[in-house]
Amino acid sequence: MPFLDTPVLPRGFRCASRNIGLKPTAKDLALFVSDVDAAAAAMFTRNQFPGAPIVLGRETIKGGVLRAIAVNSKVSNVATGARGVENARRMAAAAAAEIGCDPNLVLVSSTGVIGVPLPIEKIEQGFRGMCGELQSDPIVGVHGMMTTDTYPKALSARVGDATITWVAKGSGMIEPNMATMLAYIFTDAAFAAPALDAMLRVAVNVSFNMLSVDSDTSTSDTCALLANGVAGPVDHTAFMQALAAGCIRMTEMLARDGEGAKHLLRAVVRGAADEADARRVAKSLVNSPLIKTMVFGADPNVGRILMAVGKCFDCTIRPDATDAFINGHAVVRGGARVDFDDAEVRAALGHEIVDLEIALGVGDASATAYGCDLTQGYIDENAAYYSS
Amino acid sequence: MPFLDTPVLPRGFRCASRNIGLKPTAKDLALFVSDVDAAAAAMFTRNQFPGAPIVLGRETIKGGVLRAIAVNSKVSNVATGARGVENARRMAAAAAAEIGCDPNLVLVSSTGVIGVPLPIEKIEQGFRGMCGELQSDPIVGVHGMMTTDTYPKALSARVGDATITWVAKGSGMIEPNMATMLAYIFTDAAFAAPALDAMLRVAVNVSFNMLSVDSDTSTSDTCALLANGVAGPVDHTAFMQALAAGCIRMTEMLARDGEGAKHLLRAVVRGAADEADARRVAKSLVNSPLIKTMVFGADPNVGRILMAVGKCFDCTIRPDATDAFINGHAVVRGGARVDFDDAEVRAALGHEIVDLEIALGVGDASATAYGCDLTQGYIDENAAYYSS
Repeated sequence: MPFLDTPVLPRGFRCASRNIGLKPTAKDLALFVSDVDAAAAAMFTRNQFPGAPIVLGRETIKGGVLRAIAVNSKVSNVATGARGVENARRMAAAAAAEIGCDPNLVLVSSTGVIGVPLPIEKIEQGFRGMCGELQSDPIVGVHGMMTTDTYPKALSARVGDATITWVAKGSGMIEPNMATMLAYIFTDAAFAAPALDAMLRVAVNVSFNMLSVDSDTSTSDTCALLANGVAGPVDHTAFMQALAAGCIRMTEMLARDGEGAKHLLRAVVRGAADEADARRVAKSLVNSPLIKTMVFGADPNVGRILMAVGKCFDCTIRPDATDAFINGHAVVRGGARVDFDDAEVRAALGHEIVDLEIALGVGDASATAYGCDLTQGYIDENAAYYSS
Repeated sequence: MPFLDTPVLPRGFRCASRNIGLKPTAKDLALFVSDVDAAAAAMFTRNQFPGAPIVLGRETIKGGVLRAIAVNSKVSNVATGARGVENARRMAAAAAAEIGCDPNLVLVSSTGVIGVPLPIEKIEQGFRGMCGELQSDPIVGVHGMMTTDTYPKALSARVGDATITWVAKGSGMIEPNMATMLAYIFTDAAFAAPALDAMLRVAVNVSFNMLSVDSDTSTSDTCALLANGVAGPVDHTAFMQALAAGCIRMTEMLARDGEGAKHLLRAVVRGAADEADARRVAKSLVNSPLIKTMVFGADPNVGRILMAVGKCFDCTIRPDATDAFINGHAVVRGGARVDFDDAEVRAALGHEIVDLEIALGVGDASATAYGCDLTQGYIDENAAYYSS
C-alpha cells in the first residue's frame, strides 16, 4: 500500500486548529470541514457510559451526511448528564454557525478529563472566525485534538483519482470497541452512506477493533468516514483495500505511540478453529501484562506466551499442535519449548516491531492484534495524571 | 473471624523445607505430611497449557485421599511434554518413599520458570532424610515454595476443637481460575472427601477466583484441602464459614503482596442484576491498568471508574442508577461526578486498603474482587525477569 510521503487532505476538505484557553498554550480546538455535503458513516464506543458527544453523534450520523467534524481536547464531556448533551449540541451549533450549515451536519467529539463540565462559552467563542484559517494540511487539525500523543498522526493514500486521508489521536484508555479513541477518515471519492458504513465496519474490524494499548475501553471512541465525492467514483474493491490498509497502518501508529511504549507488538494468530478464537487469542497476547513486560525486557519467555494462549479457556487449543515464533524464530513446537539460541532471539526482541506468531494447528482462521510493551513510562504517566 | 496470632499446623500435620541447589541458597523444596491418611479435595488452573504436576494432580486427587504435598520452587515443570509428567511421577514417588506411603497419596506442585526440564535427580536426592526434619510451624514449609513473594504466607483459625491452617504462595501471573497459584489448606477436622470438595468450591469461588494481580492466569494454579480427622467431627456450617473467611483473608494477603504492589484494592459491587454481572464488573475494576495506576497515584479519577464499569458490554448497567464510593466517600451519584472534597478523597486513597464500591442499582446481586495497584515495581520485576 503506497502511502503518500506527506499527508494532505483530499480535495474539498480543509481544517484548522486553535488554542482557546482550555490548555495553557497547546492547541485545544480543531475543525475539519468539507466544502460540500459529504456522505458519512461512523462507529462509536460500546462503553456503557458513553460521553455526551457519543450520545449526540449517534443521532447526527443517522442522516448519513456531514459537513464538518468539530473536536476539543482537555475536557471529554463524559459523565456530565443532560447538561453535557446540551453542551454538545451547543458546540455543534457554534461550529455550524461559523461554517454556515445545519447543526445536524456537524459531528462533535471531546477528549480529555472525564466528569468536568465542558467550558462551552469558551468553545462557542473559539469557533468564531475559524473558517478564515482553514487549509489543507491535516496535521494542523490533528494538533487541536491531541492529549497524551507524542506526535500528530495523519496518513494519506491515493485510489485512482481519489485521495483517502486518516487522522487520529489516542494513546491511553485504548482497547476500542467499534472504533479507536478518535479517528477520522476523509476522502473525495464518491460513495453513498450505506456503502461507506459497510466498508467502515469491515475496515475497523481488522484494525482499530484489534488494537489494545491497555485493555481499557474509552467512553469517547469515535471513528468517522466522510466522502465528499469531489473526485467522482472509484473502484470499490481498490477503495476497500486501501481503506483497510490505512486503518491498519494508523492502528500500528496508535499502538506504537501507546503511553510509555517502546515497541509495537503484533500478535499474529493462525490455524485457529474460527475467527472468534483467533481474535480472542491474539487479543489475550497483546493484553497480557507479562507478555508486555517481556517485550519491554526483551526476554524470550516461552512460558508467558503459552500462558497467554492457554488462558483463553473457551477457545479450541491443542497444546501438542501449538507452535510459536518470535520475529520468525521458532520458540515453541508442539506445545514444548524449542532449544533455541537465546542470544539470537533476545536480539530479535530488541527490534522496534515485535511479531509474536502463534500457529494453533486446529483450523484455518487467523487474526492479528496490535499492542505495545508496558514500561515505567505508562505507570509514570497514569499515576501522575491529575483528574481534577 | 478470629485468626490465631501465630499460625500452627493442625494436629497430625507437619512440614519441612530444604535448599537442594535449585536456587543458590534459598529454600527450594517443601514437604507437608499428614501422619495418617487425610480426606482431600483440590482445584486446578483452567489454563489450557497445564503444567505436568497439574496433569498428574488431577489423576491423584480422584482417590480423595492424600498423605502429603510435595513442592519445589524455581522450575515449574510446564511445557515439558511427556517427560515432564514422568518427572512429576518420579517426584511423587521419591516423596512417598521417604514418607513410606503409596505415591498416589502425594500431590506434587512445581513453581518457577516454564519450559525448563525439572532437575529430577536433585529432587529425588533432596527428599532423602527430610522426614527427620518435620515440625509443626507452617512457615517453615512455605519457605520452600516461595518465588517472588516478599514474605511467607500462613494463617490459622480454630473451629470447635479443630484447627484450619492455610499456606500459600504467589505474587505474579495471578488471575486464578479454580485456584490461586499454590494454596494448601490443612485441618484436623473430620470430613469425607466429597464434602471437602463441595466446601472448597464454594470458598474458592468467593476468594481465590476473585483475585487478580495482573489478569494473567498461571499454568500451575493449585488449591488443595486436606482433612486428617484427628480432631473428630466439627459443625459443618461453622467450618464452612471459617474456611471461606480464611480463604478470603489469604486472598487479601496474596493481593497485597502482588508484584510491586503498595495497596490492597478491593472492588465491592452491589445492586447487580445477577452474580455473574457483579463478578464481571468487580473483576473489570481490579484488572483495569488505569484504575490500578490511579490507586498507585492516589488520584480520585471518576472517569476511570465509570470507564471500567462501562466496558462490561454484556452486563446490565444503567448509567443514571450507578453510584460509586472510594473508601466510603461518594464520588458518583446517578452516573455523574459528585462535587466532592478532592483533598479528602485523595487522602482516603492514600490508605493501604482502597475499597472501590459500586452500586449498580439494577438488582440485588453482589460480589467482591481483590487486586492491587500497578507500580514501577511490577514493571521492574517482570521486565528484568530472566526466563532461561
